[in-house]
Formats: sequence, C-alpha cells, structure tokens
Amino acid sequence: MRIDLNSDMGESYGRYTLGEDAELMRSVTSVNVACGWHAGDPAVMRQTVAAAKAANVRVGAHPSYPDHLGFGRREMALTRQEARDYTLYQLGALHAFAAAQGVPLQHVKAHGAFYNVAVRDREIALGIAEAMAEFDPRLIMVGLPDSELLRAAKTLGLRAAREGFADRAYNEDGTLVSRKEPGAVIHDAEAVVARVLAMVRGKVTAITGKVIPITVETICLHGDTPGAAELARRIRQALEAAAIQVVPLESLVA
Amino acid sequence: MRIDLNSDMGESYGRYTLGEDAELMRSVTSVNVACGWHAGDPAVMRQTVAAAKAANVRVGAHPSYPDHLGFGRREMALTRQEARDYTLYQLGALHAFAAAQGVPLQHVKAHGAFYNVAVRDREIALGIAEAMAEFDPRLIMVGLPDSELLRAAKTLGLRAAREGFADRAYNEDGTLVSRKEPGAVIHDAEAVVARVLAMVRGKVTAITGKVIPITVETICLHGDTPGAAELARRIRQALEAAAIQVVPLESLVA
Amino acid sequence: MRIDLNSDMGESYGRYTLGEDAELMRSVTSVNVACGWHAGDPAVMRQTVAAAKAANVRVGAHPSYPDHLGFGRREMALTRQEARDYTLYQLGALHAFAAAQGVPLQHVKAHGAFYNVAVRDREIALGIAEAMAEFDPRLIMVGLPDSELLRAAKTLGLRAAREGFADRAYNEDGTLVSRKEPGAVIHDAEAVVARVLAMVRGKVTAITGKVIPITVETICLHGDTPGAAELARRIRQALEAAAIQVVPLESLVA
Amino acid sequence: MRIDLNSDMGESYGRYTLGEDAELMRSVTSVNVACGWHAGDPAVMRQTVAAAKAANVRVGAHPSYPDHLGFGRREMALTRQEARDYTLYQLGALHAFAAAQGVPLQHVKAHGAFYNVAVRDREIALGIAEAMAEFDPRLIMVGLPDSELLRAAKTLGLRAAREGFADRAYNEDGTLVSRKEPGAVIHDAEAVVARVLAMVRGKVTAITGKVIPITVETICLHGDTPGAAELARRIRQALEAAAIQVVPLESLVA
Repeated sequence: MRIDLNSDMGESYGRYTLGEDAELMRSVTSVNVACGWHAGDPAVMRQTVAAAKAANVRVGAHPSYPDHLGFGRREMALTRQEARDYTLYQLGALHAFAAAQGVPLQHVKAHGAFYNVAVRDREIALGIAEAMAEFDPRLIMVGLPDSELLRAAKTLGLRAAREGFADRAYNEDGTLVSRKEPGAVIHDAEAVVARVLAMVRGKVTAITGKVIPITVETICLHGDTPGAAELARRIRQALEAAAIQVVPLESLVA
Repeated sequence: MRIDLNSDMGESYGRYTLGEDAELMRSVTSVNVACGWHAGDPAVMRQTVAAAKAANVRVGAHPSYPDHLGFGRREMALTRQEARDYTLYQLGALHAFAAAQGVPLQHVKAHGAFYNVAVRDREIALGIAEAMAEFDPRLIMVGLPDSELLRAAKTLGLRAAREGFADRAYNEDGTLVSRKEPGAVIHDAEAVVARVLAMVRGKVTAITGKVIPITVETICLHGDTPGAAELARRIRQALEAAAIQVVPLESLVA
Repeated sequence: MRIDLNSDMGESYGRYTLGEDAELMRSVTSVNVACGWHAGDPAVMRQTVAAAKAANVRVGAHPSYPDHLGFGRREMALTRQEARDYTLYQLGALHAFAAAQGVPLQHVKAHGAFYNVAVRDREIALGIAEAMAEFDPRLIMVGLPDSELLRAAKTLGLRAAREGFADRAYNEDGTLVSRKEPGAVIHDAEAVVARVLAMVRGKVTAITGKVIPITVETICLHGDTPGAAELARRIRQALEAAAIQVVPLESLVA
Repeated sequence: MRIDLNSDMGESYGRYTLGEDAELMRSVTSVNVACGWHAGDPAVMRQTVAAAKAANVRVGAHPSYPDHLGFGRREMALTRQEARDYTLYQLGALHAFAAAQGVPLQHVKAHGAFYNVAVRDREIALGIAEAMAEFDPRLIMVGLPDSELLRAAKTLGLRAAREGFADRAYNEDGTLVSRKEPGAVIHDAEAVVARVLAMVRGKVTAITGKVIPITVETICLHGDTPGAAELARRIRQALEAAAIQVVPLESLVA
C-alpha cells in the first residue's frame, strides 16, 4: 500500500509569514506552491521550490482566483477562458522558479474557492485542465474523487490524482461537509491519524457514522493551522509504522 | 544592412484598451509583451502572443516594477535579488502563454523605469540578467548601447542587442535626453524616419547638433502614441526603400 | 415633471483613459464616481470631483468589489460585513476628495456586479446600507425599483432613489433583461430617447411588447460606450423640449 | 514633564496577522493606523479603530506608498501631486472608519520609506501636508525634528509633533543612523528604556557616544518585533515611575 501526502506551502507574502513550511516539508511528499495570486510572492516562490528540492519533495502549482484580500477563499464568477488564462499565468510563473532550479512541476491543485467551484463546475474545471494540457500534458490534476476536476483531466488526456482530506468530515456521498456546518473540521489528532490510515485502506467514516468506500492517491495535510507540522509528523509516522509507503504522486498515477 | 524593429505591445488591461497593436504588428519584427505588472493581463498576453505568431513577429518579455498605478514609469528602490525574482516571475508567466502556442521567447527588454534604472545601475542589471540566464540562457538582452544592462548580459554569458530610439533625442555621449528636458521627444514624422535611416547607417545627430556614431541591432518604435502605427509603417517603408533588411533580432546577434 | 440623470464617471486609471466624462458632464445632474477598486485612482478621483463641481453636477460614490482585473463586473461571494467594510472604505476615500473641494456627497450607487447582486441579495444590500448609515445618514441609496438595495435603505432609515436604465430592456416584472440575452441592450438612439421620455411619464415597454408601469427618480445614462456623450445630449434636449425639469437627485427624494 | 507614545498598528491583512496590537494598545497613547496600501484592510481598519476607542487611545493615519509587496519600505519616485493624492485617499478611507465610530483623527504619520523620503524631500513633504490641510487643518503632522515633514506642516499652517525613536541609534546631527549600518537598531531592552527617559528629558546619546540635545513630543515604539508589547509596557512603567505623564499628542502640541 502506498500514498502521497500533499500540503499547501509558500503562502507567506512580503512582510507576512504563514505556515510551518520548513517542518512540514519533512513529512510530505508533494507540495502545492502558491503562485502570488492568493498568497506567495516571487521571493517566497523561489525559496519554497528550493526547500522542496532540498527535501526531495515534489512541486506542484497552487493557482487561485485573483483575490489576495480574501486569500482566494471567496467564489468569483469566472468564465472558462478566464479560468484557463489565470491558471496558465500562475503555472508559468511557478514553472520559471522550478525550471531555474532544475525542478520539474509534478501537478496542479487549484486553491481554495477555485478548487471548490471546479469540483462541481464543469466549465471552470475544463479551463484549469486546458491550461495544464496546453502547457505540459504530463502534469497531474489533483482533485476530489468523482469531481468535475478529475473528469476534466480525463477529457483533456491528463493524469489525475484523487485526493482525501485528513481533517475534514465527509458526507455519505463522498463530498466534503461544508465548513459552515458543525463538525466539518476534525480537530482531534488521534482521530485524524486514524482516518488517514483508514482512507489509505479504502474507507472513511462519514459524518453520519456510516463507513463509506474511498479511493485516494494523495491525502491533503493542512499547513496553516497551529500544530500542523506536528500532526503531519505523527501521520507520517503512523503510516510508516503500518508499513504503508509514503511516495510522491507521480509514482502513483499512470 | 539589416535592422530589427521592436515595439512594446500587450499593454491593454481588463476593460482598458491601449495601443494600436494590430496595425503596428505589420511593421515590426520583434515585440516586447507586457507581463501583467505594469500593464497586460492573462487574456491580453494570450492574444498578443497569438497576434505575433500570426504576423511572424518574434516575442520577448517586457518585465516591470510592480507598479500598475504608475504604469511602471516610476523608479523603485529594489535589491538585485528582487529585480531577479520579479523578472523571473514575469518571464515565466509570459513563457507559459508562448509555450502553449509553440512560440519561443526571443528576448527580454525591461520596461520603463526598470529599464532606465538598469541602464545605469549594475546591481539591477545583474538581477535581470541572472533571471534570464537561470531560466533560458538563449534569451537576448535588449538595452541601450554601453549600458549596465548590456554589460550584465555579457557577464552572464547572454547575447545582447543594442537598441536605438526612433523618436528620442540623444546627448553627445550617446545617452538619451531626459524626458523632463525640452526637445527630448521628436514629434516630426519626417525627422523620425530620417533619424532611423541614419542610425542604421551608424550615425545620429545629438541634441547639440553634433553627429555622433551609434551602433544598434534594434530600433524601438513607440506604440502608445496617436499615429504610432502610421509612423511605424512609414519607417518600415523607408527602410525597405533604402534596401535595408528588416529582420528579427535573433538573426542579428551572435 | 422632474427627473435626475446619472452616469458613471472617473473610470480612467493610471495610463488608461475611459469614457467621455468631460462632454457627458454637460448633460447629467448626478455622477457616480469610481473609488479605485474597479476603476479610478486618486488623481482621477480628484479631477472628476473638480469637473463635477465646475459643472454644478452632484457627486456620489460608486463602490465596487475588489476586482480591478474584471472591472467589478464579476460576482464575488462576500459576507454582509465585507460588503459594509468595503463600501465604507471606498466611500471614505471619495469623501476626502469631495470634502477637500467643499463638495458634499449626495448618493451611493454600487457598481456592476456589486449592484446586481445587491438588487436581489438582502445581506449584501444591508451591508452597503449600513456603511452609508454609519458614515452619513443623509446619503441617498440609488437602486432598481423594488430591489433589496432600496429595501435595505428603508430599513436603515436612508433616503432611496429608484433608477431606470435608458438603454436596457425590461422584463414584464420590471427587472432588467440579462445582458446574456439578445435584445438586452437597446442601441437605437431614437428608441432610447423615446424610452426615457416614457419612463419619466411612468411607463416602459417590456421586451415582450407589454407596456408596464415604472416610477423612477433617476435615469442611468451609460458613459463608456462610443457616442455616449452625444446620446446623453439628445436625451437631455428631448427632456427639456418636453418641459421635463432635469434636476439633481437630492431635490427629488424626501 | 509629559510625552506621547505612538505605535504603528492595524498592519494585519486578510489571512495574515502581524503585530501585538491588543497588548500594545495598553501602553501607548496614539496609534498610527495602516490604510490598506502597505498593510491593513477594511476589516482590520474597523477593528483597529474600535480597539483604540475602547482603550481611549488617539487615532492617526499611517499612509504609505502603493507597495503592498514591499510593505511600503522601498523608495518610489512620486511627484508632489501624487504624494498629495495618495495621502488624501488613505486619509479619507481611515477617516470613514473613525467617523463611523465617532472617533476623530488626531494626526498623520507617513509610513516607512514614504516617511523617510519626506524627512528630506521638500516636495513630498509638502504633498503630504497639503492633503492634510485640505482635508482637516486640525490634523497634527508627526515627523523627525528639523525635517522637511515638519517644515511643510508649518508652511501649511498645520500643527506638528517632533518624534523620537525608542530603539534607533542617532547620528550627532540628530538624524537616524541608517538601518543598513551596524548598531542602527538597539535591541537591549534596558538601554531602550533608559534612552526613552533621557529623550523625554531632552537628551540622547548619539552612536558616537556624544550626548546631543533632542526635543520630542512623541516617541515611537515599534510594534512588529517579538516582545514589542512587553517592551512597551516596561517603557510606560518607567515613565510613570519617573513621574512623567504619558498623554495623547493633541494635548502636547499647540
């Protein structure tokens, strides 16, 4: 059994520091690097790629709506073409920092509300996939299982990776419980670790208590909450103790 | 005798239209495409690259200070590392739109105050050149003859192109007369055409009246003034009538 | 019979010029001045207030979503508190330029998608109204008749002005035909002039052909389309020829 | 003997938190509130004004260059008119949040590089003073003693307050030692406290060891360094123990 662990990184900006990137980098195998539109800046992008390279962690782009003030967490009504152009711009900017350091880009994971909208909106998902396909068809799309994101990847001939969330509650249909509802985020570290192990084995307990099947190639560890790095360390340790290999995404998707 | 003609393009933004790009594209051989920091946006970048490709015109990046409000025309105190990171970010963003359309990037020409400062400031010039060298060492640096920009290119092993300005007055030492001084910009179309022909032949009349030597591989035609496209057409015509070949930069620099 | 004519102005930005403000200022009685978030900048705001003062035209704020790239025309998912804070920020910024020139602010008209959303979304409309009430309770809210914008104004004790659109088609229920549908915008100048006269008299022909009642205190003349100033001139002339007084909003609402 | 203590506040932004505002608010008598151009956002501005009001601390504006990425710490070449327009915009935005809460604005202190440039550049200083004078002539200009900032205030008929820096080294001529030089910032808490007491009594030891005279009405306590709130508490305590009254600026300038 094998799994990839991914985390958002490079979300510091100018005078502002966010996240425990250095510590977290030791536990994950893939990082989603902010491209300057919701977070990150050119200096942070360079440093984050360098840190990932030093830690032998794979690098992906984390494109966002143009909403710095809202940290990319607010839905915006884009057209498919805008989604495509905005993704391509951010992908290219990050690629430059990666290429300059001899690091290939492994994947693209849309950020925040851009991700959430693309899970259900076929047009936005296609815009993102089109940007990936026209720039580098080897890029892997990361998205929720059974989402428009992954369908768009298939349509464009891209590889796709199904993603689970370590600390989020699930509905019985496999969608995430909205953050607006109570219990949407799981704060108990023991529970989070146990859920990760279960997910890797193909199961997750929905918020109703029912155990549902789930298949994922990567699990998202949130990085911007206090204690995130410590939790990631425990998850990684538990996986290894259970003889589950933690490997980069690219070795898990065909 | 051969010369490249370059012009700034893709400076429209969102709801705002600027320049006579479509007409101008017929007269020049290289375009400097705004990368979204002083002008341009992802949609405009895509369209500008497509138009250049259709017109068989070479594409370069036109990186700027982060100063949208001031159109990149105000000096900012950057460090060398900031100049490098900002250039790399913009270069990468434009590269994505070019690569997606199968168009190679030919050159980099810094925009506005970023250019003017880098002409005289070795650190800023080196920052720009370092970004080019680490991203793609085949890129050509465009700059004023005898400037820090061109010296930085040499230091980094990059090809460099000397640039003349069709409508700008020169001091006797080959520097441009500051825009703040009277007579800095030449508005008479006949005079501009005559100066271009003279420059290609190695001479330009300084503001003092003295004829000075000048060697350039490319001449900049401004695109955002009324009548710019018509003036460019006349210059191109005059060059061809004088049996001077107008060819892309890349065929003029070793 | 009396009516106010309003138009969006001050939408130039930095190097970019938009609209025929100077000419249009002669025909209208109230202007909605961009506050820098979708368009406008501090220099443009100062100049627009000065031009309105010189033309004896009333000044209002035209706050927007934080979406410069999209010119404020894309819906964004804001909270009521964000709508309130963003409106207050922009209102204050414009107020400073007005106060510095001894010009009182007459009204607030939300811009673009912010307006369209607030027409139907009670929370966003209340956020806008709350900002107005806490800053200056004499401000007049401008909005579509029977909209949440006007209901929010009443709730907060603000004066409200019902607005008609000179060049937009109406549904039978008095709402505007979506711009995505054919015939949504009326381009024929004669027709536009005739519709304005009819609206002032309490009637408008819906897109179905049915004549519906409408009561408005102000009519919006679009300013950023070619020929806008000329059309405004004809509308003003037609109104005066019909002995309809064109007066500022503040003299029309109690 | 009496002194005002001021600190920069409201420099959080969107998802990013900066500074120990809540704790620091207990030790100072005046706060300089970021206006969204280098830091701060509408929500943070509202909250910062509310916190200052609750703590009975006076509020001033802290306008900046338009340089979010550089936190307003990089010099930009503005014209006097731009300095005026930018100050007025930010002043107005903050004023709205203050007025909505019934809080008058007490002063204006330019931020970062805008302050440093205006200390020595008469045109920029005049631009700032003009914005203050045209908006509210009762506003107090805060600046380095013997600076262009204070001269501009006098020219425009504004009240002016001389400012000392608790943790910065001084040259013998009363200017600050550049941050680029060693010893420019004093990190030893005991030393900082002692220097504050000395400054209030009219003396400061220059970096050369020579004691020079200094007269200040306000002392700046930096807020964005670790331990800032604790240091501020000690300074306040030491001042009170020495029977020096800590009072708002407005009671110290005529």
